[in-house]
Amino acid sequence: MITKEELILRQEQCHELFRKGGIFITPAEKSQIEIADFGLGDFERLGLGVLVYVNTDRCCAKELAMLPGQTCPEHLHPPVGTEPGKEETFRCRWGKVFLYVEGGPTPNPACRPPEGGENAYTISHEIALNPGEQYTIFPGTKHWFQAGPQGAVVSEFSTRSTDENDIFTDRRIARVTRIANS
Amino acid sequence: MITKEELILRQEQCHELFRKGGIFITPAEKSQIEIADFGLGDFERLGLGVLVYVNTDRCCAKELAMLPGQTCPEHLHPPVGTEPGKEETFRCRWGKVFLYVEGGPTPNPACRPPEGGENAYTISHEIALNPGEQYTIFPGTKHWFQAGPQGAVVSEFSTRSTDENDIFTDRRIARVTRIANS
Repeated sequence: MITKEELILRQEQCHELFRKGGIFITPAEKSQIEIADFGLGDFERLGLGVLVYVNTDRCCAKELAMLPGQTCPEHLHPPVGTEPGKEETFRCRWGKVFLYVEGGPTPNPACRPPEGGENAYTISHEIALNPGEQYTIFPGTKHWFQAGPQGAVVSEFSTRSTDENDIFTDRRIARVTRIANS
Repeated sequence: MITKEELILRQEQCHELFRKGGIFITPAEKSQIEIADFGLGDFERLGLGVLVYVNTDRCCAKELAMLPGQTCPEHLHPPVGTEPGKEETFRCRWGKVFLYVEGGPTPNPACRPPEGGENAYTISHEIALNPGEQYTIFPGTKHWFQAGPQGAVVSEFSTRSTDENDIFTDRRIARVTRIANS
């Protein structure tokens, strides 16, 4: 859970990252940036800002803003109904992001899972994305990612997004952020 | 048909537009920018630069670069096999683009169809897109667009792109650009 004051502060931070990444968003969009903390209440370490541009029955596009060293926890996108699960392409626009996917473990990876929750990170095949580099994740495969020391701005192009169906390795996680009423 | 020399010149122009729009692309991507002239050999008036980031069976993302006043001719995306046809969202990143879609004609629209080919433009319901503004075109509906006086950079998020199936109102058009062998 985060407070409304923190929500506004974090949206400002994400807006500044988008600005650095050359991404122009409208004032209305700024107030729509989702501050995803995965219900863990530790946004600076575990979280990301998400601006959904479009999400129809067939396709979706988002902009992601990540603070320095921030982690999006390990998860996968399972089949939903008759659909094979979400397919997504991450394109780094600014900064650097390290993506971890299924495959042989990378020796000496650049990132470590956030301290205290290491058990919820089971894969370590590293894909480093600099600006202009991208990678496609196919349905049903685990992945997590962490921003480099400056943070990162990442565009996500995908099939329909249904975050509520995502399966996180860390079972404490609730994908939908709760905002305090105060 | 365009020459290899023109191809390289036009890719440079598109790259410069992307730079203005805050879009970072790699040197390899620069050489992959498609210079679409619709077979009309009049790129500065009728054409656009297209960089395809990803195009899988399920979704697609592209960056479009348009010179000042350049037009993408009227077309629609028909059903393909069992699929309902391409759905696409255009998001203006830089400059300005005027999109014309089906609906009541806009009085005094900002753009005119390119001279000499007016008969191939049958719709004039105008949607003006400034940076940060976007519009979704659903399958089977006609549309065309023209860049404003500075040109435009537009992101396109869509279902699978199969340009060869597009139906243009102007029957002279061949969607696939031919490059001269000389």
